[in-house]
Amino acid sequence: MLRLKCESNSGWASAALADLDTLLIDHVHCEKKAASTALSLINRYPEKTLLVDEMITHAQEELEHFALVLGYLKERGVALRRDSADPYVNQLLEHAHRDEPRRLLDALIVAALIEARSCERFQLLVDALPPGELRDLFDGLMPSEARHFTMFLTLAREYFPATEVEQRLEEYTLIEADIVRALPDEARMHG
Amino acid sequence: MLRLKCESNSGWASAALADLDTLLIDHVHCEKKAASTALSLINRYPEKTLLVDEMITHAQEELEHFALVLGYLKERGVALRRDSADPYVNQLLEHAHRDEPRRLLDALIVAALIEARSCERFQLLVDALPPGELRDLFDGLMPSEARHFTMFLTLAREYFPATEVEQRLEEYTLIEADIVRALPDEARMHG
Repeated sequence: MLRLKCESNSGWASAALADLDTLLIDHVHCEKKAASTALSLINRYPEKTLLVDEMITHAQEELEHFALVLGYLKERGVALRRDSADPYVNQLLEHAHRDEPRRLLDALIVAALIEARSCERFQLLVDALPPGELRDLFDGLMPSEARHFTMFLTLAREYFPATEVEQRLEEYTLIEADIVRALPDEARMHG
Repeated sequence: MLRLKCESNSGWASAALADLDTLLIDHVHCEKKAASTALSLINRYPEKTLLVDEMITHAQEELEHFALVLGYLKERGVALRRDSADPYVNQLLEHAHRDEPRRLLDALIVAALIEARSCERFQLLVDALPPGELRDLFDGLMPSEARHFTMFLTLAREYFPATEVEQRLEEYTLIEADIVRALPDEARMHG
């Protein structure tokens, strides 16, 4: 359903579980960046009504998740740290077109794939974690990521022909899989 | 209470009322930029717990207002347009220090003054508008702006000595007044 061409490397979940604080901090920053990206899409495409509506809701939801995960970090006595570069997202964006309208299509597809990968990784964490608050946290966030994946593709199909979306999505899922296979196993959502 | 050194020029309210659609579109973008600024402050100062907590709440509230005013624009049949440059904010930022920790102090004071000026202008609109939905909209938003002004100054006093905050606030209110006096009367929140 999520269209991903590969599973995360087998060592990722254990690397993530070995340093849950770092993983959670990275995840908080992912929520913040998702909200920022939503605002910058509103900025770039204010005349696209459906996109603007979806991006307001999306930014609001990401900020709710930010607050939720940050609250959980506080319970653990962990302070937020500075965000580090996100090689996964940066590498995905390197393949994006700079010229409109392809820039918008690529932005929507990249956003969809980031959500899909997050969803896959939440499932890996849920499978690996013992029952408890943290497993419930990831389990609770997972449906949103799947919904966001679908929402971004729906937006793509609103503004581009279905065949063009399908073709670019197919290309980008291959790119994404290559990137994921080459990532080191680290305690990051996309590291 | 809002510490502003001058009132808006006497022609501003009538220029604003003469093109309410443009004013509302500008206001929507102000809400968006306030949310973006809150996220960038989180990004720059993740270790400052109180600031992060306040900025999440602030960004959420600004997005709620964004959605509220955008809904009102839709009722009026007006589509969102591209954001234009904001000379008021840009001129305020030209006076900000680039080096830490003064950069943070100036960011908080500039944010406080923008909220204060918005509050003063909402009051002018409420005074000038006939009873109705639009007056209620501005009247409903006004207390938030006053609260945000206080919140940004409280944050400044959390991270800087009270005398330093007071001195810089005094300097910046004079700068702000000079900028406002020189602005043309336009249908913009800060134009």
